[in-house]
Amino acid sequence: MSSTAANRPRVMAGMRPSGLVHLGHLVGVLTQWANYSGSADAFFEIADLHAYTTDFDDPAKIRDARNEMVAAWLAAGVDPRTSTIFLQSGIPQISELQVLLAMITPLSWLERVPTFKGQIEALGQQIATYGFLGYPLLQLCDIAIFRGEYVPVGRDQVAHLELGREIVRRFNYLYGDGREILIEPQATLSEFPDVPGIDGRKMSKSYDNAIFISDDEETTTRKVRAMVTDPLKIRRGDPGRPEICPLFALWRLVNPLKVDGVAAECRSGALGCVQDKTDFAEQLNAHLRPLRERYTMYRGDPALVERIIAEGTARARDIAAGVLADVKRAMKLTSAL
Amino acid sequence: MSSTAANRPRVMAGMRPSGLVHLGHLVGVLTQWANYSGSADAFFEIADLHAYTTDFDDPAKIRDARNEMVAAWLAAGVDPRTSTIFLQSGIPQISELQVLLAMITPLSWLERVPTFKGQIEALGQQIATYGFLGYPLLQLCDIAIFRGEYVPVGRDQVAHLELGREIVRRFNYLYGDGREILIEPQATLSEFPDVPGIDGRKMSKSYDNAIFISDDEETTTRKVRAMVTDPLKIRRGDPGRPEICPLFALWRLVNPLKVDGVAAECRSGALGCVQDKTDFAEQLNAHLRPLRERYTMYRGDPALVERIIAEGTARARDIAAGVLADVKRAMKLTSAL
Repeated sequence: MSSTAANRPRVMAGMRPSGLVHLGHLVGVLTQWANYSGSADAFFEIADLHAYTTDFDDPAKIRDARNEMVAAWLAAGVDPRTSTIFLQSGIPQISELQVLLAMITPLSWLERVPTFKGQIEALGQQIATYGFLGYPLLQLCDIAIFRGEYVPVGRDQVAHLELGREIVRRFNYLYGDGREILIEPQATLSEFPDVPGIDGRKMSKSYDNAIFISDDEETTTRKVRAMVTDPLKIRRGDPGRPEICPLFALWRLVNPLKVDGVAAECRSGALGCVQDKTDFAEQLNAHLRPLRERYTMYRGDPALVERIIAEGTARARDIAAGVLADVKRAMKLTSAL
Repeated sequence: MSSTAANRPRVMAGMRPSGLVHLGHLVGVLTQWANYSGSADAFFEIADLHAYTTDFDDPAKIRDARNEMVAAWLAAGVDPRTSTIFLQSGIPQISELQVLLAMITPLSWLERVPTFKGQIEALGQQIATYGFLGYPLLQLCDIAIFRGEYVPVGRDQVAHLELGREIVRRFNYLYGDGREILIEPQATLSEFPDVPGIDGRKMSKSYDNAIFISDDEETTTRKVRAMVTDPLKIRRGDPGRPEICPLFALWRLVNPLKVDGVAAECRSGALGCVQDKTDFAEQLNAHLRPLRERYTMYRGDPALVERIIAEGTARARDIAAGVLADVKRAMKLTSAL
C-alpha cells in the first residue's frame, strides 16, 4: 500500500465472479480500474455474496470463477501494491453493518428501487427473496464499511447509490450526534462505452457472443471473422456504413488512431469486410498479447493470486473493523467483549 | 461448561434488554431458564440487535439495561457454569448467516408472518423497516448458528419458528447434498402464566404497573397496597371473588401452598383486601429476598457480570464460527483466507 494512500480519494468498485472476463469488461471497466489503482486509494471487491442474489441455486461456479476474474484484473493493470483487492465474503463487518442499517431502512425505500420491480418482471417472482430486496443495502454496506468516497457506477446504478446516501444520512442523523460516522458515497458517473459482441448485441457471456481474455489468438480470430457487419455491404466494393457496424465499434475502442482510415476505406468500398476482419483480428490480438501473457502467468500461479486476495482482504478487514466499531459505539452497542 | 453438555439437548432462549426485569419475567420465564441451565445445554441470548427492530431511535437505554437484565437472570438462578450467557451483537456470525440465508428466503414467506402485518397495523407504517420484515429470519439465525435444537416459545412465536424451519429445510435441500448442515429447531411450547400488574392488566413496564426485581421491600409493599382487587368487595366482610382478583392471581404464582386458604377466607369475607395485601406483600418480599440479595450483589459488581457475559460470548462465538464455516463450505464460499 502506498504511503500516500491516506491523501488519495477512496474509490470503491466491485465485480461479481459470474463468468469469464471478456473484452466488454476490459474496455468498459478494467481499463478505468487500472487507472484508479494508480491515482486513488482504490478498493476492488470480489462480490461473491452479491452473486447469490440471483445465482443462489448454483454456487459452485462462483468460487471457480473467482481466481480467473482476479487474474484478468491483474493482467489488465490493477496494481495490488497500490490498491486493495478483497473478497466480500471475507469481511464479516459488511454483514454486521447490513443487519444494523436494516433496522433504519424503510421497506418502502427498497421497494421503490426501479431495478427491483423491473427484474422481478423480467425474471419472475421466484427471484424476489429477502436478500434480493436488500441488494442495494448490501451494496451500500460494501462501500460504507470502508468509508468509500467515490463509486464509479453506470446510469442504472445511480438510483441504488442515491438510496444508499439517504440511508447514511438517516444513520448520521439518528446516531451521529452531529458527526459523520458514515460517509455518503458519491457516484462518479462513468459513460461505459457500449461494447458489441460478435452478433452485434451488447457483449455478454449470457448471449454467447463474447471475446474472452482467456481465448487464444486463433479463437479470437475465428470469432472476429464470424462478426456481424453492415448487412447491405455484401462484397468488397459495396459502400459500408461504419456507424452501424459492430466491427467498426470495436475498432474505435481498440485502436482509436486507426478508425478514421478504416472508416474512409469502408465507406468508399475499397475495404471489404473479410479484409477488415483480418486486419482487426491482428490488431486485437496484438493489443491483447501483453495482457494475455500476464493473464497466463497469473493463471499458472494460483497461489500468487490467492496470496494477493488474502493480503488485500486482511487489509480491508482491518479498516472495516475500525468503521464497524465506530458504528457500534454510535449506536451504544459497544461492549468490553 | 459442564463436561456433559454434549449429551444434553441444546436449548436456545433470549430476551431483549428493553427495561427493568419484573415479576412477570421472573415467574413466566426466568424460573424456566434456571431449570434449563441445570438440565440442558442452554444458551441465553442478550438480544441487543433485536432491540433495534422497534427501538432504533433510542439506543442509549439498550446498553444501560443489559447488565441489569443479566444480574436479574443470575439472581433468578441461571447458572453461568452450566449454561452460556452471550451477547447477540458479539456474534458476527449471526449477521453473516442472515445475509447468506436472506438469499434463499422468499419475501412472500416473511410478508405472510402474522406478526408483521399485525404490528404494522398496531404501531404504524414507520416501523416497517427492512430489518423489521427480516426479524423472524434474524431470530432463526440466532438459533441456527448454534444448531439449537429446542426453543421455548409462546404461541405467538410458533409461526416464526415454523418459518425458520422452512428456511433451514430449503437451505439443506439446496446445499446440504443429503446432509443436515443446519438443524431445524423445534418449539417447546410453553404456557407462560398470565402475570397481572398492579392495575390488573398484564404486567408490563410500558403499562407502568410492574413490580421490579430492583424495587426495595418498601416500594414493593406500596405497589401491592395499590393493587386492584375485586371491585365488588368494598370492605372486610364482603364476600370476594378470587377468580377475578389480580392479587389472588399473584398469590397463585408466588405461593401455591397458601392459595386455598386465602381463597376460602376471601370468599367468606373473613379476609379483607387490606389485610390480604399486607399478607401478600410480606410473602412476596420474603419470596424475593434471597433473589434480591443475589441481585444486589451482582448489581454491585458490574465487572463480574461483564466477565460472565464476555466468557459466554467467547464460548458462543467459537461454536458459531464452526457452524458458519460449515455453511460457507456447503455454499462453496470457503476460501483460504
